[in-house]
Amino acid sequence: MALLYSYERLFSFSKNIFLQIGCSEENAETATRVLLSADLRGVDSHGIARLPGYVRLWEVGRINANPAISIVHETLSTATFDGDKGLGLVVAPAAMQIAIEKAMKVGTGWVSVKNSNHFGIAGIHAMMALQYDMIGIAMTNASPLVAPTFSIERLLGTNPIAVAIPAGSEPPFVADFATTTAANGKLEILQRKNMDTPMGWVQTKTGEPSINAAEVRNGGALLPLGGDKEHGSHKGYMLGSIVDIFSAILSGANYGPWVPPFPAYVPMPENMPGEGIGHFFGAMRIDAFRPATDFKDNMDNWIQRFRSAKTVAGEEKVIIPGEPETAMEIKRRSDGIPLIEPVINDLKELGNKFDIPF
Amino acid sequence: MALLYSYERLFSFSKNIFLQIGCSEENAETATRVLLSADLRGVDSHGIARLPGYVRLWEVGRINANPAISIVHETLSTATFDGDKGLGLVVAPAAMQIAIEKAMKVGTGWVSVKNSNHFGIAGIHAMMALQYDMIGIAMTNASPLVAPTFSIERLLGTNPIAVAIPAGSEPPFVADFATTTAANGKLEILQRKNMDTPMGWVQTKTGEPSINAAEVRNGGALLPLGGDKEHGSHKGYMLGSIVDIFSAILSGANYGPWVPPFPAYVPMPENMPGEGIGHFFGAMRIDAFRPATDFKDNMDNWIQRFRSAKTVAGEEKVIIPGEPETAMEIKRRSDGIPLIEPVINDLKELGNKFDIPF
Repeated sequence: MALLYSYERLFSFSKNIFLQIGCSEENAETATRVLLSADLRGVDSHGIARLPGYVRLWEVGRINANPAISIVHETLSTATFDGDKGLGLVVAPAAMQIAIEKAMKVGTGWVSVKNSNHFGIAGIHAMMALQYDMIGIAMTNASPLVAPTFSIERLLGTNPIAVAIPAGSEPPFVADFATTTAANGKLEILQRKNMDTPMGWVQTKTGEPSINAAEVRNGGALLPLGGDKEHGSHKGYMLGSIVDIFSAILSGANYGPWVPPFPAYVPMPENMPGEGIGHFFGAMRIDAFRPATDFKDNMDNWIQRFRSAKTVAGEEKVIIPGEPETAMEIKRRSDGIPLIEPVINDLKELGNKFDIPF
Repeated sequence: MALLYSYERLFSFSKNIFLQIGCSEENAETATRVLLSADLRGVDSHGIARLPGYVRLWEVGRINANPAISIVHETLSTATFDGDKGLGLVVAPAAMQIAIEKAMKVGTGWVSVKNSNHFGIAGIHAMMALQYDMIGIAMTNASPLVAPTFSIERLLGTNPIAVAIPAGSEPPFVADFATTTAANGKLEILQRKNMDTPMGWVQTKTGEPSINAAEVRNGGALLPLGGDKEHGSHKGYMLGSIVDIFSAILSGANYGPWVPPFPAYVPMPENMPGEGIGHFFGAMRIDAFRPATDFKDNMDNWIQRFRSAKTVAGEEKVIIPGEPETAMEIKRRSDGIPLIEPVINDLKELGNKFDIPF
């Protein structure tokens, strides 16, 4: 059972909370816009449901509400960012903006970020490039929940990759996906419904195949995209590793099993080799390769050809990456954003703490 | 039953064949080195077994042995290449070299290529960056054998991605993988042995799940990494699409279902929207982000931690991407490269045609 809340109402609440923990007006708005973009696009696990979690990280001193974000190293097409323990929701757009500005000057821009925190959904950062006729890329590492192929230890996060590509008359192509078979949010939904997972999503703490949606809580692990070796899990493991290395080893953040956990009550790993969590952003100007109109004409043709492909029985059409999220955003901006009771209760409790009624 | 051939003997034969079709001395050597790197690294499907296929493409006029490769557009960090219908084995190293030179100057370099042909294994091109303390990236589109999620039409190739990352005392991290559950070469091996595939590798021409290794010949399709929607095949489909767009829509090559087939006897698609097949290359200087020694120390630590992870019962260790291929290369350089009888017969026939005994 879910209740509908208007975007404006959630925006106002979230912004006030961020102001209360000490964010500037501008940062509170940016953080809220990024956070709620997940709710609008239908990625409920990464939206306002996480607001109490960010506040708890601030309470234990792991988030700096007023970070002095700085470029610590750069070339004409690259930069390394120190997020100064800021909200990833604020650090990420700042880093992506630098990637875009470098792309304006030399064709492409690439920014690796250390000392940051969870940045919300990857897709929204990649999409910043679209208005400039650029391809946008965003990725981040995350706390270790994933066992590489053959491992029973959790050494990688769900490490998502987002790529946003402009089209002409068609909406943009926006891919945004965890490098695991299934995102952790999908497990949480199955747990709430007391349902099993399909095979290939999780394994037990000794590495046996499992369909228990609570397996990760029992010391088990999420599996890399592919599920097992026979179905290509080594490829999902490689993808997650590349995200980890670009985000954290290029920047000097923590990597692999040393990435700080999102829940504030989980102790930090020992002997951490870097600072905070890491992200990686890229922007490529289309006309650094080819006139943008030619590119967009081809993209429209690509999208129309794929969308009109003959389908397997029972499926209406081949889905273009980003289309369902765009439709969801239109619907939710007009109808409101549904929140389930546990989330509503969490937000009420959070509001009470700061005298901001939800 | 396979016979062993020395690298030097295969090199000499292959180089002579490339000279016979009109390649320059330099191009014949480059093409041979790239081609045989697949045999050395254990990717037998992409090595000398393909030499007769390249020659057949030259015979039907689809490969230009003396291409005038040119940069048709560039910025400080990007270039678009016209391969002039050359061998991808020659065009790709030239494009990667430009990416490296741009990275030397401005931190990163990115090259999209049109009007090319099959470039061998992706990994060898990405690895060119390693000697300069750079991360190398290589990808290519390929003829359509893969059905996107929900499609019964084949709209994508196996579209591989390779990423090579330098380490310190450890060997480099080299990921090189098709964006499908299984590469086409693995199907061919199962067909020869009259064996079934696991579920999730292929579907029938009407989109039913199948375990028939000959399904692609029957009008069926390879499946994107993930296999089906429940196991994340939309993620494999997105990855394959990104490779297609970066390789071909950025450059002006053919994309999606219009990519020219590798077998010379397969007719070209109608209404092709671009020129040849497309590739995409990237080079990122490590010290454009961070001192290379710090990065390499962290990479060594990353590799050692992952390699020593506790494993599931029956598995010796977690594999570091590139390690098996490095070990294979050492073995085959010393023991020789095994060729199976059908390949030997093909090469003998090819040799007879040009009076070059195999």
